[in-house]
Amino acid sequence: MYLAEVKGNVVATTKDQKLVGTKLLIVQPMDPTFTPYGNPLIAVDTVGAGFRDRVIIATGGSARTIFAEGTPVDAAIVAIIDTVELY
Amino acid sequence: MYLAEVKGNVVATTKDQKLVGTKLLIVQPMDPTFTPYGNPLIAVDTVGAGFRDRVIIATGGSARTIFAEGTPVDAAIVAIIDTVELY
Amino acid sequence: MYLAEVKGNVVATTKDQKLVGTKLLIVQPMDPTFTPYGNPLIAVDTVGAGFRDRVIIATGGSARTIFAEGTPVDAAIVAIIDTVELY
Amino acid sequence: MYLAEVKGNVVATTKDQKLVGTKLLIVQPMDPTFTPYGNPLIAVDTVGAGFRDRVIIATGGSARTIFAEGTPVDAAIVAIIDTVELY
Amino acid sequence: MYLAEVKGNVVATTKDQKLVGTKLLIVQPMDPTFTPYGNPLIAVDTVGAGFRDRVIIATGGSARTIFAEGTPVDAAIVAIIDTVELY
Repeated sequence: MYLAEVKGNVVATTKDQKLVGTKLLIVQPMDPTFTPYGNPLIAVDTVGAGFRDRVIIATGGSARTIFAEGTPVDAAIVAIIDTVELY
Repeated sequence: MYLAEVKGNVVATTKDQKLVGTKLLIVQPMDPTFTPYGNPLIAVDTVGAGFRDRVIIATGGSARTIFAEGTPVDAAIVAIIDTVELY
Repeated sequence: MYLAEVKGNVVATTKDQKLVGTKLLIVQPMDPTFTPYGNPLIAVDTVGAGFRDRVIIATGGSARTIFAEGTPVDAAIVAIIDTVELY
Repeated sequence: MYLAEVKGNVVATTKDQKLVGTKLLIVQPMDPTFTPYGNPLIAVDTVGAGFRDRVIIATGGSARTIFAEGTPVDAAIVAIIDTVELY
Repeated sequence: MYLAEVKGNVVATTKDQKLVGTKLLIVQPMDPTFTPYGNPLIAVDTVGAGFRDRVIIATGGSARTIFAEGTPVDAAIVAIIDTVELY
């Protein structure tokens, strides 16, 4: 999984039937000091995340497993971060 | 999932039987400001996307899950974007 | 999936039992203008591809799904390209 | 799998129900000489790893397979390293 | 799959129960001219590979499929290379 910050959202009327009703959020991967790296991606929210929330993203089958069989989701927001503690 | 723009298509007569009838489109990954990054890839269309459409791509098993068992697809266009809203 | 060109092959007598009889080809990922990028990888041929053919590679479970249960294949050649059309 | 060092942990009250009770650790990928590379990621501990431990991370379905069906984990700490021997 | 060279091994007493008895080898990805690229990773041997052998690595579920259900392996050595032929 990786840390990320919610940067926006995407609206798509024409989409896979099983994506109807999902919140398609734009997330920017970040390191534990919340420095961005790589490119923003799309993740489906599952925990009520929103504007500028810092979150944890699960990917691949580990995202898809949250949804109904056949749902084409390969990234999901699975936690909203309270604190990050670096040793 | 990632944002992308449809850049073209591929014709392949010799292919896996289960790819017959699929639309093999060339997609360029893009960030939310529609700046391209990385290399163009091949994705199978599932929502009627076409020339220069801006789309969402699902990958791996999350693409394959849309198709019949045993279909060798690891990237699928699953939405056509109306708007991107950056906070 | 990604575009690639067949660059060679690998011979391995000592291998997983389920790889016996498969054609282990070396493939160079390419963009749609057939400019190479990244590093050559190994893919199992499933469509009769050979010397300098331009092909489509499916990866991960989407490659494995073509073979018998338990076959350790994570990249497969699933189409030989006739033409690439860039819009 | 890859080598990594435990660098910290993440606290998240709001999370997927199946992540409740898991230890979300921040891990820095490292090469066998323990030189860091890439970005720190989040992995769930399964072997009692902690502060500055050097560990092995399994990813994707190979991490998820350790947990109950439907658990959105795509990286897990699966071993604590005693020694690394380079030939 | 990718080509690699065996560079060493890892000893880990504390590990997932299903990794007990596996050979955790350090492998360096290589291109077909055996020039190294990227970072060394950990792969479980399944074909008797050892010191400086040149091998083929399968990843993700295509590695896991070789082992018992629930085994957290995402990279496996599945062949020892005799020859590489570049066209």
